[in-house]
Amino acid sequence: MTDRAPNPSAPTAKAGNALWGGRFEAGPGEIMEEINASIDVDKRLARQDIAGSMAHVAMLAETGIVSHADAAAISAGLTTIAGEIEAGTFPFSRALEDIHMNIEARLKDLIGEPAGRLHTARSRNDQVATDFKLWVRDALDGLDGEMADLQRAFVTVAERHAATVMPGFTHLQSAQPVTFGHHCLAYVEMVARDRGRIADARRRMNESPLGAAALAGTAFPIDREMTAAALGFDGPMRNSLDAVSSRDFALEALAAAAIAATHLSRFAEELVIWCSAPFRFVTLSDAFTTGSSIMPQKKNPDAAELVRAKVGRIIGALTTLLVVMKGVPLAYSKDMQEDKPPLFDALPALSLCVRATAGMVRDLTVNEDAMRALASKGHTTATDLADWLVREVGLPFREAHHITGEAVLAAERAGKEIADLTLAELRAVDGRITEDALTVLTVDRSVASRTSLGGTAPERVRTEAQRWRALLDATATQTDTAA
Amino acid sequence: MTDRAPNPSAPTAKAGNALWGGRFEAGPGEIMEEINASIDVDKRLARQDIAGSMAHVAMLAETGIVSHADAAAISAGLTTIAGEIEAGTFPFSRALEDIHMNIEARLKDLIGEPAGRLHTARSRNDQVATDFKLWVRDALDGLDGEMADLQRAFVTVAERHAATVMPGFTHLQSAQPVTFGHHCLAYVEMVARDRGRIADARRRMNESPLGAAALAGTAFPIDREMTAAALGFDGPMRNSLDAVSSRDFALEALAAAAIAATHLSRFAEELVIWCSAPFRFVTLSDAFTTGSSIMPQKKNPDAAELVRAKVGRIIGALTTLLVVMKGVPLAYSKDMQEDKPPLFDALPALSLCVRATAGMVRDLTVNEDAMRALASKGHTTATDLADWLVREVGLPFREAHHITGEAVLAAERAGKEIADLTLAELRAVDGRITEDALTVLTVDRSVASRTSLGGTAPERVRTEAQRWRALLDATATQTDTAA
Amino acid sequence: MTDRAPNPSAPTAKAGNALWGGRFEAGPGEIMEEINASIDVDKRLARQDIAGSMAHVAMLAETGIVSHADAAAISAGLTTIAGEIEAGTFPFSRALEDIHMNIEARLKDLIGEPAGRLHTARSRNDQVATDFKLWVRDALDGLDGEMADLQRAFVTVAERHAATVMPGFTHLQSAQPVTFGHHCLAYVEMVARDRGRIADARRRMNESPLGAAALAGTAFPIDREMTAAALGFDGPMRNSLDAVSSRDFALEALAAAAIAATHLSRFAEELVIWCSAPFRFVTLSDAFTTGSSIMPQKKNPDAAELVRAKVGRIIGALTTLLVVMKGVPLAYSKDMQEDKPPLFDALPALSLCVRATAGMVRDLTVNEDAMRALASKGHTTATDLADWLVREVGLPFREAHHITGEAVLAAERAGKEIADLTLAELRAVDGRITEDALTVLTVDRSVASRTSLGGTAPERVRTEAQRWRALLDATATQTDTAA
Amino acid sequence: MTDRAPNPSAPTAKAGNALWGGRFEAGPGEIMEEINASIDVDKRLARQDIAGSMAHVAMLAETGIVSHADAAAISAGLTTIAGEIEAGTFPFSRALEDIHMNIEARLKDLIGEPAGRLHTARSRNDQVATDFKLWVRDALDGLDGEMADLQRAFVTVAERHAATVMPGFTHLQSAQPVTFGHHCLAYVEMVARDRGRIADARRRMNESPLGAAALAGTAFPIDREMTAAALGFDGPMRNSLDAVSSRDFALEALAAAAIAATHLSRFAEELVIWCSAPFRFVTLSDAFTTGSSIMPQKKNPDAAELVRAKVGRIIGALTTLLVVMKGVPLAYSKDMQEDKPPLFDALPALSLCVRATAGMVRDLTVNEDAMRALASKGHTTATDLADWLVREVGLPFREAHHITGEAVLAAERAGKEIADLTLAELRAVDGRITEDALTVLTVDRSVASRTSLGGTAPERVRTEAQRWRALLDATATQTDTAA
Repeated sequence: MTDRAPNPSAPTAKAGNALWGGRFEAGPGEIMEEINASIDVDKRLARQDIAGSMAHVAMLAETGIVSHADAAAISAGLTTIAGEIEAGTFPFSRALEDIHMNIEARLKDLIGEPAGRLHTARSRNDQVATDFKLWVRDALDGLDGEMADLQRAFVTVAERHAATVMPGFTHLQSAQPVTFGHHCLAYVEMVARDRGRIADARRRMNESPLGAAALAGTAFPIDREMTAAALGFDGPMRNSLDAVSSRDFALEALAAAAIAATHLSRFAEELVIWCSAPFRFVTLSDAFTTGSSIMPQKKNPDAAELVRAKVGRIIGALTTLLVVMKGVPLAYSKDMQEDKPPLFDALPALSLCVRATAGMVRDLTVNEDAMRALASKGHTTATDLADWLVREVGLPFREAHHITGEAVLAAERAGKEIADLTLAELRAVDGRITEDALTVLTVDRSVASRTSLGGTAPERVRTEAQRWRALLDATATQTDTAA
Repeated sequence: MTDRAPNPSAPTAKAGNALWGGRFEAGPGEIMEEINASIDVDKRLARQDIAGSMAHVAMLAETGIVSHADAAAISAGLTTIAGEIEAGTFPFSRALEDIHMNIEARLKDLIGEPAGRLHTARSRNDQVATDFKLWVRDALDGLDGEMADLQRAFVTVAERHAATVMPGFTHLQSAQPVTFGHHCLAYVEMVARDRGRIADARRRMNESPLGAAALAGTAFPIDREMTAAALGFDGPMRNSLDAVSSRDFALEALAAAAIAATHLSRFAEELVIWCSAPFRFVTLSDAFTTGSSIMPQKKNPDAAELVRAKVGRIIGALTTLLVVMKGVPLAYSKDMQEDKPPLFDALPALSLCVRATAGMVRDLTVNEDAMRALASKGHTTATDLADWLVREVGLPFREAHHITGEAVLAAERAGKEIADLTLAELRAVDGRITEDALTVLTVDRSVASRTSLGGTAPERVRTEAQRWRALLDATATQTDTAA
Repeated sequence: MTDRAPNPSAPTAKAGNALWGGRFEAGPGEIMEEINASIDVDKRLARQDIAGSMAHVAMLAETGIVSHADAAAISAGLTTIAGEIEAGTFPFSRALEDIHMNIEARLKDLIGEPAGRLHTARSRNDQVATDFKLWVRDALDGLDGEMADLQRAFVTVAERHAATVMPGFTHLQSAQPVTFGHHCLAYVEMVARDRGRIADARRRMNESPLGAAALAGTAFPIDREMTAAALGFDGPMRNSLDAVSSRDFALEALAAAAIAATHLSRFAEELVIWCSAPFRFVTLSDAFTTGSSIMPQKKNPDAAELVRAKVGRIIGALTTLLVVMKGVPLAYSKDMQEDKPPLFDALPALSLCVRATAGMVRDLTVNEDAMRALASKGHTTATDLADWLVREVGLPFREAHHITGEAVLAAERAGKEIADLTLAELRAVDGRITEDALTVLTVDRSVASRTSLGGTAPERVRTEAQRWRALLDATATQTDTAA
Repeated sequence: MTDRAPNPSAPTAKAGNALWGGRFEAGPGEIMEEINASIDVDKRLARQDIAGSMAHVAMLAETGIVSHADAAAISAGLTTIAGEIEAGTFPFSRALEDIHMNIEARLKDLIGEPAGRLHTARSRNDQVATDFKLWVRDALDGLDGEMADLQRAFVTVAERHAATVMPGFTHLQSAQPVTFGHHCLAYVEMVARDRGRIADARRRMNESPLGAAALAGTAFPIDREMTAAALGFDGPMRNSLDAVSSRDFALEALAAAAIAATHLSRFAEELVIWCSAPFRFVTLSDAFTTGSSIMPQKKNPDAAELVRAKVGRIIGALTTLLVVMKGVPLAYSKDMQEDKPPLFDALPALSLCVRATAGMVRDLTVNEDAMRALASKGHTTATDLADWLVREVGLPFREAHHITGEAVLAAERAGKEIADLTLAELRAVDGRITEDALTVLTVDRSVASRTSLGGTAPERVRTEAQRWRALLDATATQTDTAA
C-alpha cells in the first residue's frame, strides 16, 4: 500500500515581500527548473562544447561510425552555431536546461536529421567533463601567462632597487636592513612556485574523458586517442568511471589558486601598510587608488585592499567544491553540477588579482628616503656587531649576542642608535671591540655583507634578478613558439 | 629621492587565447575599473538604497537640515527612479562605480540642484551598511516564511504517517523500528532551531547604521531614531565606528544558513538513498526527478542531489566572508566591498533548497510495504526483549542485554528473525522468558511501547504533530497580521 | 557465491622511516583501534559523563526502575570515580574505547552487579549527546564571563581616553579625527553582539537529549523532565531521533566563536600596526611581547599576532564540523564521533584569545602625542568645513564638498594643513567663508562637534562608556547571584 | 604624554566553573605563556631539529666557522639528546618555550660553552622552517608508501573481480552494468593522481631554508649547498626572505591531502551504502566493524564512517592554514607559529584513513549474487539496444534512443525487464529489430561489449589491472632500492 501526501493549494506567502514573495509561490515545476537548469552558468562552456563536438564528430567519421557527409553537415552546423554565440545571436533557452542540449537542439534546427547522430558513442557525462576540463585548462594557461608577467614586473623593480635599503621586518618590527629588490625577489620565488603548481595541475589534468560515455565506455569502435589529440590532451583517461566521476582536476586548480592568492594577499597587505601616512614607503598613482573629492591628497589603496579581500572568495570556492565532492558515490551524481560556479568565480578572480598586482608593482613609486630612515632606526645592525664578535674575537655566538645586547642598552641610555655609538662607548661595553667593528654597523655595510646564497647583498640581488630575467625571457620565447 | 619603475609598453599576451587574452592586455585603468566597480553586484541593492534615501531625506526635512521643498523634489525623483529600475529602463553605468552613485547621478539628471542635498549628513559608508542590512533582513524574512512552509510540509506527512513503521538506522544499519512520522518530526525540530537562528540573527542585526556618516558621526542635528523607525529598525546602532565597520550581521546570517543547509543535506541524502532501487522507501514524481528518454522507469532524484550539493556553496560563502573580515583594521576598508557576493549567492541558494525540499516532501509517495519489510528484518526488536527482561524479571540491563544476544544468535542459527522464535526456542535461551515476552517482539508493539517523551510511539507522534500544527498556524496568523 | 580478497602477509613498509614506518605495518586490528577509539579525545567529558549518570540513576530510582539501594551504590561508585579522575589515578584504557565504557567498567569493578543497572533506559547515543552538550554549555558560560571581562577592559580604557584624539582610518588612511575611547567602544559593541550569539546558542541548545535512548525513546516509564532539571537543562528535547542525531548546537557554538574571533583578529591587527615604529600609537609591556636578547628595545607583539592567527583555527574547526555533518543520514552515524575535536580545539582557543586580548587592553600604554600628531595631518577636518558650508551658507552638500576640495588643494600648494590656512587664504577659495569657519577646523572641535547619537564627541563617548559600565556591573551582579 | 590603563585587581570569575574558572583568573604572565609557548606542539619536531643542527654544525666546521673540536662536542651532545628523547627521558620545559630552546639549553647542560657556538650563522626563523619542512617531507613520504599500498589492495581486488558484474550507478540509480574490478580501478586512478600531487608537493618543497638566518642571509661564509645535501634537499632556497616567510609548501601538502581525502570519503560512502541490508553488496569482517552485544548480526561499518568524516578535519586544517597565512606581511610573524597544528593533525589523519581504507579493501567479502541481481534490474542494458539500432540499422542515435524508450515502456507494461522481452515483443515496438539484438541485452554481453579504451569489458579490466600491478611493482622496487 502506498499513499501520497497532499500538496496544499498554496503556501502562505509573506505579503509585501517583493524580493522573495514571488518565487515563494512558485509551483514544483518552477522550483525544479530553477534548481535544475544550469544554462545560466554553463553557457560559458559554449566554445569548449563546440570544440569537443567537432573533435568527436571528426573521429566518428574517421572510424566509420557516421558517414563523412553527416559529419560534414554537423561540423558546418557547429561552425554556424559558434558564430551565433560569438555574435550574441544564439537563442539560449532555459527549458533546454544546459549548454549541451541548447547546442544540439539548435543543430537540429539548422541541419535536421544528421544532428541526431552527433551524440553517438557519447553521453552528457563525458561531454561535460571534457568541456569543463578544456575551460579550466584555458584558465590555467591564462593565469600562467599573467603570473609570468607579474614576475617580470617584480624583477624589473628588483633590478632597479637592488641596493635600496629598507627595514626587513619580523612582527612588523624592524629587524635587519634588507634591500627592496631582495623583498621583490621573494615574491618572484613565491609566484614561481605558484606557477609550478598551476603547471602541475595542468599537466595532471590533461587527459581526455571523452569516450567514457555514460560511465562504462562504449561498444562503438571509437578512437579516443584521436579525440584526445584533437583537443590538445596528452591522451585519454584510462578508466571510464573515473573519467565521468572525478573532479580532482578542478579541486587542484582551486587549491593552486587559493595558495597563490594568499601570496598576493600578503603583498597587498604590505602595500596598504606602506601607503599609510606613517610608513610612506611607496605611493600608488591614481590608476590604482581612489581619491576623495574633498581630500584630494588622499589616495585610498583600493586595488590592494580588494586583492587582499579576494583571497576570501578563492578560499571559499575551494571549500565549496571540497564539500560538494565529499562522500558522493560513483559515478555521476547531479551534485557535480555544482562544480562549475566555484571555478567560474575563483579563477577569473585570481586572474584579476594577478593583473592588478602586476599593475600596482609597475605603478608604485618608491620613497627611498622613508625606507632608509626607518631601516636606520631600531639598532637594526646589532646582529652585525654580534657576528663581528664571533668572527673577529672568536666568541661563542650566545656570548657575542649577550654583549651586543649590552651595547644596544648603552645606546638606548645615550639616546642613540647603536650605529652612532663611538668606539669609546662600545669599548666601555666590551674592551675587545676595535675600530673595525664600527664599519659593520651601517645599514649599507650590513646589507652588503650578507653575501650568503639567497642573502640580501645588492650584488646577490642583482645576480638573482638577472637570473630570473633570463629565465622569464627564455620561457616567454618558448611559450610564443608553442602557441 | 624617489623613482618609479617603468611600465613596459605591453605585457606579452599569449597568442590565441581568446578567453583571457583580451583582458590580459588591459591597461591599468581597465584593470582598476574591473576590480573596483561594484555596480554589477550591488545593483541588487537598488530598492534598499532608495528606501534608505527616502527615510534619510524625510528626516533631513523634519530636522530642518534641508527644506521641505527640496525634500519633496528628492522624494519625487527617487520615486521616479524606483519606477525606472522596476521597469528595467534605468541607465546603469559602470563608470559610476556603484549603485549609490548611479542613483544619485540619475537624481541630479531628474531634479537638478536639490539632488546635491540628499547626501548631507550621510556617507557612502553608512549608506551601504544600511542598504546591505535591509537586503539581508528581507532575505531572512523570506527564508523564515519558506522554512515555516517546510515545517508544515513535514508536519502534514508526519500526521499521515504517525504509525507507518520504518527502520530507524544507526550507521545505515537497521537498529530499532520507528515511524516515518517520527522521522519527519525530527526535521521539524531541526528546522525550528534553524528558524530560531534566523530570527535571532534578524533581531540582533536590526539596528540602523544610518547616521554614522563616514565613521565618526556628524555635527548636523540628525534624528537617527526617526530614520531607524522609518526603515523598520528597532533603533540606531550606538557607535559610529562599529556601524560602518562591522559585518558580523552578515556572517551570522551566513552561519545560520550554513547550519540549516547541513540539515537539508542530510534529508537530501536520505532521499537519494530511499529512492534507490534496493531501498524503494519513497518515490518522487516527475516534478522533482529527471528521467531518461531511454530508460523511462528511471527517476533520478536530481533535486535532492542538488540540495545535498548546495550546502557546499553556502559553507563556501561563509568561509569567504570570514576570510574577508579576518584582520581588517577599522573603520571601512575596501575589502568590505567583497561582503555582498557571498550573501547574494548563499541566501537565495538556501531559499531554493528550502523550497525544493518542501516541494519534495509534499511530492513524495511512501512505499509503506518496503519500509515495514526492512524494519522487520535484522532483529530490530531485540532491545525490546532485553528491556522486558529488565522490567519483568528484574535483571540488570547488562545481563538482560547478554541474554538477548544469545536469543538473537539462536534466531540466526535457526534462520529466523528473533520475532519469529517460538516460546520454546526463547526459553531454551533463558527459562525466565514467558509468553508475555513474545508480545514485545513485533515491530508494531515495539514502536507503540516507546511512549517516553520524545519517543516514537504513534500516539506521541500524533500529539507532537498536532502541537506543531497549532504552533505553525498560530505563527502564520501572527505573521499575516504583522505583515 | 561470495569470495574474499586475500590479505597479503604484510604491506611493504618503507625502510628507515621511523615516524611512519611503525604504524604502517600495523595489522587491521591496530588500525581499527587507532581509528575507532575515542578515549584520548573524549576523556575530557569525564566530569560531564559522571554528572549525567548521577542524574540518570537518581531518576531511575525515583521512578522505581531501579531500587534505591542500587541507585545509592551506583552514585557512591560514581563519586569515587570522580575523585579518581580528579586525582589523576583513574586507569584509562584504550581497549574500552570511550569515556562511557571506561567509567562503566570501573564502576563494575567498584560496586559489582548494580553497575549493570545504570545503563537501563539509556544508550550511548543519548549519553554522549548529553555529555557533549554539558561540555559545550560549560565552555560557553566560561566564554561569556571572559568576554564580559574583555568589555570591562575596553570600557575602562574608553573612559580614560574619551577625549584622546586619534585619526579615524578608512583604508588605513586618516579620514577624520575620532577619540581613542570611541574606538574602544566600537569593540565593546562588537563583543556585546558576540556575547549575544553565545547566549542565544546556549539558550537554544539547553534542552536535554537524555532519555532519547538509542534513537526511538524507551518503554521504561522514565521522567525526562527530572533528569533535564537535574542537569540544568530547560527541559527535554522533544524528538528522540533529533536528540541523538543533531549537532547544530555544536555548529552554532563554533559559528559564534568564529565570528567573535574575527573581531579579535581585527583588534590584533590594529595592535600590530599601532606597535610598529612608524605608528607608535601604543606600547605593550613585556607581559605581552617578546623581546630579543640582542635588541632589548624590540618588543614583538607576539600575543597580538597569535590572536590574529588563531582565528584560522577557529574557522577551520567550524569548517571541519560543517563538512562532517554534511549529508549524514539519521540517526547516529559514527561520523559524529568527529564532532568533539573541533570544539575541544576551538573553544579553548577562543577563550585564550579573549583573555589575551583583555590582558593586552589593560596592559597597553597609549602614546597620545603620536595619535594626535597623525590625526592632525592629512586635512582630516576637511569634511567639517564642507559641513559648515552646508549649515551656515546653505550650500548643497555636493557643492560644499567641491569647494572644500579646492581649499585642501590650496593648502597642499601652500605646504600646509587645511586647519592652518588663514581666513584670507580660505576666502580666496570661496568668499562666503567667514572667521567662524576657522573654528571647525581643529581636531578637537571636530571631534567635539560630532554629537549625533553614536558619534565620537567626548561627551557622547563618556555617556556611552558609563552606560556600558552600568550594564556590565548589573550583569555581573546578576551572574553572581545566579551562580 | 602617555598613560596606562590600570589593571584591576582581579576579573570577576564565574563561581563554580571548575573547567574555565581556573584559567580565567590567570595573570598576564600565565596567559602569555599559554598563548606563546609552542613546546607542547613542536616537540614533535625533535628528531628533525637535531638532524638540522647536526647538518649545520658539520658545515660550520667544514667552513672553519667553528672548530672541529667544538663541532664534535656539539654533535656528540646532540646524539645524547636524541637518545634521551627516544628514551622519553628528555626534560621538556615549557618555560623554554619551544623545541629549539629546549634542545639548545640541554646541549649547554651537557657540553657547556661550545653549545653557544651552534647557533652561529643561524636563526630560529630558518631553523624552524627547516625542521618543519623535514617533518612534512617525512609525512609525505609515509603517505606515498601507504597510498601505493592502497592501490595494490584495489588492484588485487580488481584482478579477482574483473568480470564480477555490478550495477554502475548514476544518481545512485542503476544505469549500466559495469564490473566490480572496473569500479576498483577507478579508485586506483584517483589515488595515482593523489600520489602525483604528493610527489609534486614533495619535489617543490625540497629546497633548504637553512642559511637564510633571521631573514637577510648572513655574512658568515656558510655553505648552504652542503647543509642542503646533508638533509636530503635538492638545494638551497634562493631568497632568504622567502625562505623564512613562506609556508606554501605546507599549504600544498594540506591541499593534496584534502583532495585525496575526498576520494576516500567517496569510497567510504559507497562502503556504508553497500553494507546496508538492502544492498548487501559487500560484508566487512569484525576487524573493521563494530557489533552490538545485543544484535550479533549487526556489523556497523564504523571505520568507513570515520574515513568519511575525517575528510572534514583535513579540509578544516587546510582552511585553518589558508586563513592564518592570509594578509601576513613578510618576513616572519608569530602568526606562523600556528602553521604546525593543522599539519600535525591532518597528515596523520589522512595516513590513518588511507591505511583503514586499504585494510577494508583487503577485508571486504563481495556478495556477487546481490551485485548481479541488482545489475540485472532496471533495464540497465537499454542503451545496448539503442547502440545496436545505430550500429546495425543505421539509425541516428537520437531516433534509436527514442525507440529503445518505447521498448522499455513495453517491458514495464509487461512487468518484465527489457532483457526478458521476446523477439516478438521487441518487433512490436520496431520491426527492424532482429534476433541478433537479443544477444546484446544480457548484462554479461553488455559489459563484454564495452571494449573501448577505459571501458568496463573484463578483458580491458584485466589488462589495466596488470598494467597497474607492473607499475606498482616497479615503483616498489625502485623505492626499496632507494631506501
